[in-house]
Amino acid sequence: MDLVGLDDIQAAAENIRGVAVRTPLLPWLDGDRTLGRRSPGVLLKPENLQPTGAFKVRGARHAVACLPEARRAAGVVTHSSGNHGQALAYAARAFGVPCVVVMPDVAPPVKVAATRALGAEVVLVPPAERLARMQQLVASRGLSPIPPYDHRDVIAGQGTVGLEIVQDLSDVDVVLVPVGGGGLAAGVATAVKALRPSAAVVGVEPELAADARDSLAAGTVVTWPVERAYQTIADALRTPLSELTLAHLSARLDDILTVSDDEIRDAVGRLARSARLVAEPGGAAAVAAYLHHRASLPAGRTVAVVSGGNIDPQLLRSLL
Amino acid sequence: MDLVGLDDIQAAAENIRGVAVRTPLLPWLDGDRTLGRRSPGVLLKPENLQPTGAFKVRGARHAVACLPEARRAAGVVTHSSGNHGQALAYAARAFGVPCVVVMPDVAPPVKVAATRALGAEVVLVPPAERLARMQQLVASRGLSPIPPYDHRDVIAGQGTVGLEIVQDLSDVDVVLVPVGGGGLAAGVATAVKALRPSAAVVGVEPELAADARDSLAAGTVVTWPVERAYQTIADALRTPLSELTLAHLSARLDDILTVSDDEIRDAVGRLARSARLVAEPGGAAAVAAYLHHRASLPAGRTVAVVSGGNIDPQLLRSLL
Repeated sequence: MDLVGLDDIQAAAENIRGVAVRTPLLPWLDGDRTLGRRSPGVLLKPENLQPTGAFKVRGARHAVACLPEARRAAGVVTHSSGNHGQALAYAARAFGVPCVVVMPDVAPPVKVAATRALGAEVVLVPPAERLARMQQLVASRGLSPIPPYDHRDVIAGQGTVGLEIVQDLSDVDVVLVPVGGGGLAAGVATAVKALRPSAAVVGVEPELAADARDSLAAGTVVTWPVERAYQTIADALRTPLSELTLAHLSARLDDILTVSDDEIRDAVGRLARSARLVAEPGGAAAVAAYLHHRASLPAGRTVAVVSGGNIDPQLLRSLL
Repeated sequence: MDLVGLDDIQAAAENIRGVAVRTPLLPWLDGDRTLGRRSPGVLLKPENLQPTGAFKVRGARHAVACLPEARRAAGVVTHSSGNHGQALAYAARAFGVPCVVVMPDVAPPVKVAATRALGAEVVLVPPAERLARMQQLVASRGLSPIPPYDHRDVIAGQGTVGLEIVQDLSDVDVVLVPVGGGGLAAGVATAVKALRPSAAVVGVEPELAADARDSLAAGTVVTWPVERAYQTIADALRTPLSELTLAHLSARLDDILTVSDDEIRDAVGRLARSARLVAEPGGAAAVAAYLHHRASLPAGRTVAVVSGGNIDPQLLRSLL
């Protein structure tokens, strides 16, 4: 399989300039202070501060930018109702092209409204019909499908997170990155291992949705039943890998580890209290690994990616 | 009076590199979406993400860096128990020099512990004796006093916020900045008016602590009685101006306006819910002005400085 390369990610960096935020690395004092010992320190990469609240705008923007102009003008479509749907709407709006987001008719009205507020056309269908409706829209209206992670340009766009980490911290030793569908981890591992081969890139997923760990062990995509994967609070990380993301992770990820939902809750609370960042549960998974699994991690200067911040305010209240 | 100039702020930018975070400008969709109309948009300058949670590290770092080496080695002292005390401790630690923070013996233990965790020596005294004890420490131990805002180097350091705003948004039209002791507003106004004279710099303070407005109107420092100024929830903005900061604001600030405590509370909640930023009340004052006083503001591309994020978690809970 042809994997994404560093040059693809460097091209993406040009395409996202001025649309995605160039997030800084934030030294996090409390990450060490609360551990009560000296350490080389941890830095946070706050992707929750991107427009629409997650790293997803990087991949969406790059994928839209890579479309031939005539196809782009016809518009784009996705059936992701999560962070990718809003990111694609944002990216399409910046180009002034149509965007359709096929959402399940059981989606919370606040999500539908937020997606519409970004200029997207929302098509509500029964959950089981989402994929079929999307394909129908592709055929009937000439829309280009932009999936959330099973797409080379999307992976290249997410990889700019890794590119920026090494640009800002050339002697980074460890990068911790959440794993859902694997697009972010695939891109970050590609960039970091190309630029700094000695650094370890470690994926983190909920132990209640450890399908990526199982997939890496099995060498093929293992999908957990929905009723099992949906137990974790980290809704952004319930998705299975694709063959494409698995191929990247198999080749380039150094390790994958799991965190409990309680550890994730603790990380969300501590990020808000002492890093002044609002993270969603999936967005805090890498931080949970740093706080609770240091002994299992390689030593050295560590960056944890805070991948998203779209948390229900009532849940955040309960974790403060 | 000799005012701080652009060259002083450019020198400060060199001195803070790698110690203060180079914060990005964050497009804030909700700031406009909730207003229900098109606008040129607002961008947030998230200084709550600095180490120790506020812009203060900029001025503290620059002031320590400007000390002659022998004096710096002897150490620094301040009697601020707020964000400046922790920022000075952080700046001193980066230089490996002693830092003493004189705090009132009624200070919350959590603040004392946080200051000590940054390596500072905390001296607890009855509130009325703070200044005298600091002066005694200056005399007996050769410590250099670094006040929170009544100091040219501190103002120059805070001015780097304005420098970065114009670097990142050269066509900025309006900059909204909270006013407490006036160091941040003085520095930001100095940088912005020097680099982009057509931009308006507007100070924002609580209507329950509107001593800066009164001072600008009177042309002399007006100090509100403590029991009056302490009514506002914005604890970081209760401080009076100094002659030095008033001189800068008189010469360079375009306007000053006040916000209610309810407007501040609303801004804190909205920043957490839709900008994924934890702000303290004083840190959200400029955003409150944008959300609730648009009609009183000049038109155009607007930046609001989110100056700090050290909020009690229980208060944040109540505002979500």
